[in-house]
Amino acid sequence: MTTYERRFEQFRRMVDHRLRSLIRGTEPEELFDACRYVLSSGGKRIRSTVLMLSCEAVGGTVSESLEAGTAIEIMHNFTLVHDDIMDNANSRRGRPTVHKRWDVNNALLVGDVLLGVAYHTLLDTRRANIGLLVDLFTSGLLDVCEGQALDLAFERRTDVSVRQYYRMIEKKTGRLIAVAAEMGAVIGRGSSRETAALREFGLYLGRAFQLQDDLLDVTADEKDFGKVVGGDILEGKKTFLLLRAAERARGDDKKIIDGILKRKPVSASDRKRLVSRVTSIYRRYGVLDEGEEEVTRNTRKAIAALERLKRRDATRMLRWLAERLMNRVS
Amino acid sequence: MTTYERRFEQFRRMVDHRLRSLIRGTEPEELFDACRYVLSSGGKRIRSTVLMLSCEAVGGTVSESLEAGTAIEIMHNFTLVHDDIMDNANSRRGRPTVHKRWDVNNALLVGDVLLGVAYHTLLDTRRANIGLLVDLFTSGLLDVCEGQALDLAFERRTDVSVRQYYRMIEKKTGRLIAVAAEMGAVIGRGSSRETAALREFGLYLGRAFQLQDDLLDVTADEKDFGKVVGGDILEGKKTFLLLRAAERARGDDKKIIDGILKRKPVSASDRKRLVSRVTSIYRRYGVLDEGEEEVTRNTRKAIAALERLKRRDATRMLRWLAERLMNRVS
Repeated sequence: MTTYERRFEQFRRMVDHRLRSLIRGTEPEELFDACRYVLSSGGKRIRSTVLMLSCEAVGGTVSESLEAGTAIEIMHNFTLVHDDIMDNANSRRGRPTVHKRWDVNNALLVGDVLLGVAYHTLLDTRRANIGLLVDLFTSGLLDVCEGQALDLAFERRTDVSVRQYYRMIEKKTGRLIAVAAEMGAVIGRGSSRETAALREFGLYLGRAFQLQDDLLDVTADEKDFGKVVGGDILEGKKTFLLLRAAERARGDDKKIIDGILKRKPVSASDRKRLVSRVTSIYRRYGVLDEGEEEVTRNTRKAIAALERLKRRDATRMLRWLAERLMNRVS
Repeated sequence: MTTYERRFEQFRRMVDHRLRSLIRGTEPEELFDACRYVLSSGGKRIRSTVLMLSCEAVGGTVSESLEAGTAIEIMHNFTLVHDDIMDNANSRRGRPTVHKRWDVNNALLVGDVLLGVAYHTLLDTRRANIGLLVDLFTSGLLDVCEGQALDLAFERRTDVSVRQYYRMIEKKTGRLIAVAAEMGAVIGRGSSRETAALREFGLYLGRAFQLQDDLLDVTADEKDFGKVVGGDILEGKKTFLLLRAAERARGDDKKIIDGILKRKPVSASDRKRLVSRVTSIYRRYGVLDEGEEEVTRNTRKAIAALERLKRRDATRMLRWLAERLMNRVS
C-alpha cells in the first residue's frame, strides 16, 4: 500500500465510523434499522474523500470537513435508495436493496429521513459560512434529482443524443462531486480562485467517473466488478457507448443497436451472446476507444485544474485519486 | 369578512403567489409540470400563516418571514406527495394525486425536488441565524417522516394505545406547526422566552388541529368537507376516536370496533351503514364529546401560551386563528 492508499483507507474508515453512529432512533424499528442498514453498507466514499481533500488543499483540516464529508455521503446514499425504488433494483453492493429487504413505503421514508440526517450532519460543521454550504448542498440535491428524472425520461425515448446524455450525467453524477470539492474549499476558507479550481476539478472528475462506469459495464472482469457485465446493455440504458454506437453502426449492427435502444426483451439464453455481440460493435466502431480517450481527457482536465492550487500534499493526493479512479477495475 | 379574515386571505395570497413563481425548470417536462401542479393546488396555508404571524408577534415583519413561510408550505407539500404514494391515495384537494396523474417514479422525484426547493427558499431569508433556521426546519422534516413511519406501522397493529397515537400525531402534524411558530420567532429575533411561548403555542395548536381532523371525519357535512365522511373508519385508520372506542366499547359494539381495527374488508353497499353505526358508538360511549373537549382544551392551552407575549395585533390574530381552526368545518 502506498501512502495515499493508506490515507484513502483512513478517510473511508473515518466516514464509515461517523456514519455508523448517526442513527440513534429506535421506533419504528423498520425505519431506523433500514437507515442503519444503508449507512453501514460501505461504498468507495469518493465524494467525502474529494470534499475532505479539497478542504486540505486550500489549507483547511480534515477534522473541519469530516461532518460535511459524511453529509455528502448520506446525500449520495439517499439518492441510491430512491433510485433503486425507481429502477426496481434487487441488489446494491451485494445486499438486497431497501425496498426488497423491507418494502417500498419504508424505502421511500428511509430516503427522506436520510436526507434530513444529511442536513443535520452538515450543520455540525464549525466555523464555516453555513448558509453557503447549505446552498451548495441543496443545489447538489436538485441537480441529482433532475439528472435522475432525465435518466428516467430517456428510458422511454430512442432519440437521445450524446450531448443530451452528457447533460444528464453531468447532473446525475458530475455535479455532486463538483459540489463536494466546492464545499471542501469553502470549509477550508479557500480563495474564490481556489474554490473555482476545485469546482472545475470536481466537474471533470465526475464526468470521467461516470464515463468510466459506462465502460466498465462492458470491459470489467465480473470477479472485480461485483455486478453482471453487460447489465447496461441488457437494460437498454442510454450510455455514452450505446448512443455513440447508434450514430455510427450500419447494417445488421445498426439493427442490433436499435433493438437495445427500443429495449426489446431478451431471452435469458440470448443474453451472453447479445452482450458479446454489442461489445464487438463498440470495439469495431471505435466507441470503446473513444470512451477511454474521453475518460483520459476529462481526467487530465481535472488534474490541470489542480495546477491552479498551491502545491500541498492534499493537492497531490487529489491528482493521485483522479488517476486511481481512471484506472479502477470496479 | 372581519379584518383578520381579510389578513388571513392576504397571507395566503402572498404565499400562493410566491409558490407559483418558484419552479422555473422546464426539462424534463413531467418533473417540473408536476412540481408546479403541486404548488398551485391551494391549501389552507396554516403553517405559513403561523410562521409569519409568529414573526410579527415578536416584533418582526411579514416580508422578513415570507420566504420561510413559503418554505414550510413546500415542505408540507413534499410530505403530502410522498404520503399519497404510500397510502395509494387517488385524489388530494379535489384533483388526482401526483402519482395517479403521472406515475410513482415521477411523484417520488417531485417530492425530493420540492424538498430541495424548500431549502433553497428558506435560504433566501435575510438577516437571520440561518444555521438555526435550517436546523429547526430539518428537525421538522425528521419528525414528520418518523410520524408517518409510525402511522404506517400502526396500520399493521391492532394494539395501538391512545398514548402512542398522541405521540404519532405529535410528530406527524404537531411538530411542523410548532417548528413554524418557532422559526417565525427566530426570524423576528424574539427572546428565548418569546420563542418558547410560540413553540408551545404551535405544539398545542398542532394537537388541536389533528384531533379536529379526526372529529371532522365523522361530524363534517360532506359538502363542506370535500372528502368522504367516514373515510378514516372505512380505512381502519387508528384515530383518537377509534382507539378510545376500542377501550370502552362492549358486546356487539366491541365486535364492530375490532373489525375496523383489524381492517376487515367492507362491501360497498355496507359502507354507509357501517359509518353511521360506528359514529353512533362514538357518540354513545362519549368518545365524540371527549374528542371535542380535547380540541377545546388544547386550543385553550395554545392561547394561554400567547399570554406570555407582548400584546400586539399579530398575537391577537394568532388567538383568532386558533379559535377559527377549532370551529372549522373542513
